[in-house]
Amino acid sequence: MLVRRADGVTVEPVTSEGAEGVTIQWLINEGDPGAEHFVMRRFEVVPGGHTPLHTHPWEHEVYVLAGRGVVATPDGDHAIAPGDVVLVAPRDVHQFRCTGDETLQFLCLIPAPESCG
Amino acid sequence: MLVRRADGVTVEPVTSEGAEGVTIQWLINEGDPGAEHFVMRRFEVVPGGHTPLHTHPWEHEVYVLAGRGVVATPDGDHAIAPGDVVLVAPRDVHQFRCTGDETLQFLCLIPAPESCG
Repeated sequence: MLVRRADGVTVEPVTSEGAEGVTIQWLINEGDPGAEHFVMRRFEVVPGGHTPLHTHPWEHEVYVLAGRGVVATPDGDHAIAPGDVVLVAPRDVHQFRCTGDETLQFLCLIPAPESCG
Repeated sequence: MLVRRADGVTVEPVTSEGAEGVTIQWLINEGDPGAEHFVMRRFEVVPGGHTPLHTHPWEHEVYVLAGRGVVATPDGDHAIAPGDVVLVAPRDVHQFRCTGDETLQFLCLIPAPESCG
């Protein structure tokens, strides 16, 4: 059993190409006992910032905690607000943008790299 | 890509033996396209209520959204508040109790039954 205060977890800048004003915290990571199948990250995107517009072979399960934004896709933007859930399927092109005056904060869970193949 | 408002998801009472004042919403479930490895649920526990004190062979990854409570274990109680993360490892005995005046609300993700064996 692990109980961890999210605010105490190291905040790291996201430096991938196409990311602007984004930080990540690995709230539950692979080394944690029992986290064999999936891991939990918390992202923050400052007003005007965005994650990369990209795609990959794994899914995202997202829960919006604070702020306003959009999930951009090739088919258009979907508005997101606190309490919204986003399921990005494997290979979906996607980008999270903060469109409000407040930092956009969301959880984003992904499968653990070594699980499930 | 699926965008879903959590407040619109059906709220179901948890009727397992040992549960008291608990509801569950399946925010991302197995039938959703791309949710092959893990699923997302949101729980609410009213003041004085609790989930069952139990154990099972799969993990929980929890993020506390609102309220105050404890995770009870055979070794004692761990206080939880908004922004806290709990990793319940497989076979850990655990129970979530709402000890505050406000409903305890948390996300709890589990591996999808058909993934990972």
